[in-house]
Amino acid sequence: MRLANVGETVTLSGWVQRTRKMGGMTFADLRDRYGITQLVFDESKDADLCERANKMGREWVIQITGEVGERESKNKNLPTGDVEIIVRELNVLNESITPPFTIEEQSDGGDDLRMKYRYLDLRRPNVRRNLELRHKFAFEVRRYLDEQGFMEIETPVLVNSTPEGARDFVVPSRMNLGQFYALPQSPQTLKQLLMVAGMDRYFQIVKCFRDEDLRADRQPEFTQIDCEMSFVEQEDILQVFEGLSRHLFKAILNIDIPALPRMTWADAMKYYGSDKPDTRFDMKFVELMDVLKGTGEFTVFNEAEYIGGICCEGQAAYTRKQLDQLTDFVRRPQIGAKGLVYARVGEDGTVKSSVDKFYTPEVLENLKQAMNAKPGDLILIISGPDTLKARKQLCELRLEMGSRMGLRPKDKFSCLWVIDFPMYEWSDEEQRLMAMHHPFTSPKPEDIALLDTDPASVRANAYDMVINGVEVGGGSIRIHDAKLQQKIFEILGFTPEQAQQKFGFLMNAFKYGAPPHGGLAYGLDRFVSLFAGLDSIRDCIAFPKNNSGRDVMLNAPGLIDQSQLDELHLQIDLPAEEA
Amino acid sequence: MRLANVGETVTLSGWVQRTRKMGGMTFADLRDRYGITQLVFDESKDADLCERANKMGREWVIQITGEVGERESKNKNLPTGDVEIIVRELNVLNESITPPFTIEEQSDGGDDLRMKYRYLDLRRPNVRRNLELRHKFAFEVRRYLDEQGFMEIETPVLVNSTPEGARDFVVPSRMNLGQFYALPQSPQTLKQLLMVAGMDRYFQIVKCFRDEDLRADRQPEFTQIDCEMSFVEQEDILQVFEGLSRHLFKAILNIDIPALPRMTWADAMKYYGSDKPDTRFDMKFVELMDVLKGTGEFTVFNEAEYIGGICCEGQAAYTRKQLDQLTDFVRRPQIGAKGLVYARVGEDGTVKSSVDKFYTPEVLENLKQAMNAKPGDLILIISGPDTLKARKQLCELRLEMGSRMGLRPKDKFSCLWVIDFPMYEWSDEEQRLMAMHHPFTSPKPEDIALLDTDPASVRANAYDMVINGVEVGGGSIRIHDAKLQQKIFEILGFTPEQAQQKFGFLMNAFKYGAPPHGGLAYGLDRFVSLFAGLDSIRDCIAFPKNNSGRDVMLNAPGLIDQSQLDELHLQIDLPAEEA
Repeated sequence: MRLANVGETVTLSGWVQRTRKMGGMTFADLRDRYGITQLVFDESKDADLCERANKMGREWVIQITGEVGERESKNKNLPTGDVEIIVRELNVLNESITPPFTIEEQSDGGDDLRMKYRYLDLRRPNVRRNLELRHKFAFEVRRYLDEQGFMEIETPVLVNSTPEGARDFVVPSRMNLGQFYALPQSPQTLKQLLMVAGMDRYFQIVKCFRDEDLRADRQPEFTQIDCEMSFVEQEDILQVFEGLSRHLFKAILNIDIPALPRMTWADAMKYYGSDKPDTRFDMKFVELMDVLKGTGEFTVFNEAEYIGGICCEGQAAYTRKQLDQLTDFVRRPQIGAKGLVYARVGEDGTVKSSVDKFYTPEVLENLKQAMNAKPGDLILIISGPDTLKARKQLCELRLEMGSRMGLRPKDKFSCLWVIDFPMYEWSDEEQRLMAMHHPFTSPKPEDIALLDTDPASVRANAYDMVINGVEVGGGSIRIHDAKLQQKIFEILGFTPEQAQQKFGFLMNAFKYGAPPHGGLAYGLDRFVSLFAGLDSIRDCIAFPKNNSGRDVMLNAPGLIDQSQLDELHLQIDLPAEEA
Repeated sequence: MRLANVGETVTLSGWVQRTRKMGGMTFADLRDRYGITQLVFDESKDADLCERANKMGREWVIQITGEVGERESKNKNLPTGDVEIIVRELNVLNESITPPFTIEEQSDGGDDLRMKYRYLDLRRPNVRRNLELRHKFAFEVRRYLDEQGFMEIETPVLVNSTPEGARDFVVPSRMNLGQFYALPQSPQTLKQLLMVAGMDRYFQIVKCFRDEDLRADRQPEFTQIDCEMSFVEQEDILQVFEGLSRHLFKAILNIDIPALPRMTWADAMKYYGSDKPDTRFDMKFVELMDVLKGTGEFTVFNEAEYIGGICCEGQAAYTRKQLDQLTDFVRRPQIGAKGLVYARVGEDGTVKSSVDKFYTPEVLENLKQAMNAKPGDLILIISGPDTLKARKQLCELRLEMGSRMGLRPKDKFSCLWVIDFPMYEWSDEEQRLMAMHHPFTSPKPEDIALLDTDPASVRANAYDMVINGVEVGGGSIRIHDAKLQQKIFEILGFTPEQAQQKFGFLMNAFKYGAPPHGGLAYGLDRFVSLFAGLDSIRDCIAFPKNNSGRDVMLNAPGLIDQSQLDELHLQIDLPAEEA
């Protein structure tokens, strides 16, 4: 309702946000899905009605009929803040006991309490808006892909357990005793079978499941936008899904994003120490081995395999205390650096660093030149015996400085493709090469010869879409040749028998005319969280689970009846301390 | 491609449907997602190319470039039948071994073989069209409901086990040992919580799960269009979802369906012996107790609790043999009638029946009048000691006659609402009243007083949408009052403790201002099957399971590693004969 509606008679239903008595008037804020409207009950006009209104408590459900009037004191914070309803009829639809926390944008309820009463938490306008955005996001994905000729095809949730990847959730089968379904970690093999089936352009917004120990931003069930195309090369896929992303930014946030730059994985690691660089700000790594290794008496650098720096513009005024905080930050076990070297560039252009005594002024001047540092800038340097680890440490430091310098606002978006991922990465745990993406990813044709001689150096036709340092999606061109697939399984350490047992249905399918194909999958929860400016994907999920995988509102998981276990012929065999 | 494209150079990719040599020419049918196109390889122009084409086998994957030409012998059965491609370049993308069945509308593959190689079965154009229709159907549902202000909200798949209803699939939790999630049979309670949360207009196209012994047209996982609204009465819901159905018929089949008639459950049982009457044809039941009970010497009728007939227009020429077949049909154990009485109305208006000797001509004339039978009609009569059972038998007979008389064409649609369902039905098995719909269904306000005195006679605010004898959807206005909900649980035989344990989270939520609400759910698989004219929902599911709940392509369910069982602390304890 707006000023244009003044004089109209309306009927509204909703929840009582709050009431207040002022003189002979009672005011109430009525909240519904669309906002807040002020209701007015005038004692002088209808004393009985006003008395009933005075009895209403917070979160009562009411229906009112009345006339739209112009407010004397307008509330500019509300879309409906110019008007009020002079109530004529009041119908209490349901009462409410006092809610355990306030139903407002800034609630006084803690996380646990709000999750237990999630149905009340969802009444908060900001939480509701997240779900509205998610609805709109998913709908626009469907609209765009439908227009591009993609078909949404549902794949089954009760599938078979696959060994590669994370741990499966399993489902005992009563009709096939002793056997289990698994819930899909992704529809990867099924969508590849749909390509073999000639479906050409497939997508699905689909729940996926991983039984992992939950980190902050993981859920045991999550939603993917899963896509696959046939008769395409990497370039086709990048074009189509860049188009989708641009459409989403425009349709939902009304933002025109520029064409997505492409960065090789090697460059992403070299300049940002991460395969998902946050490119909202520059502050690229500069490698300083030539400048600082062997050019002075600083043993740490002289023994380093990697020395890299970032230049923090205008931050030379950082105090000793602030620099100590940064040093503590990079020394935290999660980051693991031994220490931090800094250099301030004074207004006169001279360099003062924490390792002054080891280096000549010429070397420090070289450092300034290499870093392209200007007067007033702060240079921060990380080194270490392991290039990959040192780069990751420097990455964390760069992100921390970006945050401190206000260079990572949530309403600014920087998107890019990271391409040319390696096929494999070495697993210290498993002591073998693991598929970096998944075992169906195709190598770059020009690198296929290296599979026999130097598999670790083989690059894949794989790509990630990165926004603001978050990997929102990724995919690859797949192998469509049964023989090449077999070879990849070998490199991954599968015997032919194991490969046949686990992936036989796919390799068999490839014998019947598999088309060249590839695709990608977006993490819907993450993508939406990014659009909504949320810190956690939980906030855009209606009923999320906590870090123990529990839904505290439903109290799930829970015990089941013995008769259910008996029907499944299962026994629970708990360790003594848990029994 | 059409005649308008003649002369253009095109590049096509797809599968070789078949090849044939004729003189110096080789013809090949190329199949892609969009249809079949004839390719021509001319030996006189490029012998080498033609030789390579001759080597192509069925289901090879190729890419060709060539010029569109007009066919001499046009194929009117194909949209692209007027043109052919004179091929200039041939690129074999992948070979294929011989498929185990023909990839054609009418395949020579049996059901089991086609399911094992479902990725080949899906290449058949008719199967592909079913999935295309399903995609379009789901998209139009979303488009319509979005326009009506509905939000799609995803509810969790890992929930808690609920006792009422079918058997749950359960998922052992590794992080909460000894405890299990359940897969949702429907998001019923979650969508009610979303109403408590103020979400107002919710929908979701969502997978649901039931571990039931599978009948012909059931799948362990199936898809619902699940909907719920707040601040509505039954009439609002019927209007909104009638609108959705009309939209779907128009957008997908280009059919304008008339306003949906409404039939009470009592009338549906009285006139059709079914709560999902097939109203594509009339042939309503006529109750004949007044006409035939006690008016003659036929003991069967004189002892019957129910006598009912149908009038089959113009079928008086049914032979004795045909009538014997019908008698056998109703005597089958699945139907269970003792027998069948018939009466033919001759061209002169006289009635000749199988029970002539027991009745006077006046009684038979009364029968003719009651049935409103005309010369040439055939009257079929069923009777029995149990009204409900006799009606169900007569229902089967009516459907059989409808089929024989060609009154049930798949491209004719007759939709209606069945309303005013009873709240409860008696379960012989459980020896108690069971919720006919589910325990959250609200009684009609005018029947609430009967809850104490005669619960079996209480009618519910429940409704089903029926099309062509198939229940495509159903729902109800829910209880939003915690006290009434408690009372309903009592009548269903739950102790307060049991009700609290199983549904406490819902009843607790109702204390915090639950709005009046209601909704319905459509079975997407069934609805789509109906639109596609399919006999089984399997044909519109990409990867369905068989009657043992198995996916024979994936070979799921299957055995899992001992390590997986150990992590879950589960032991399998098979009965001796299965171990």
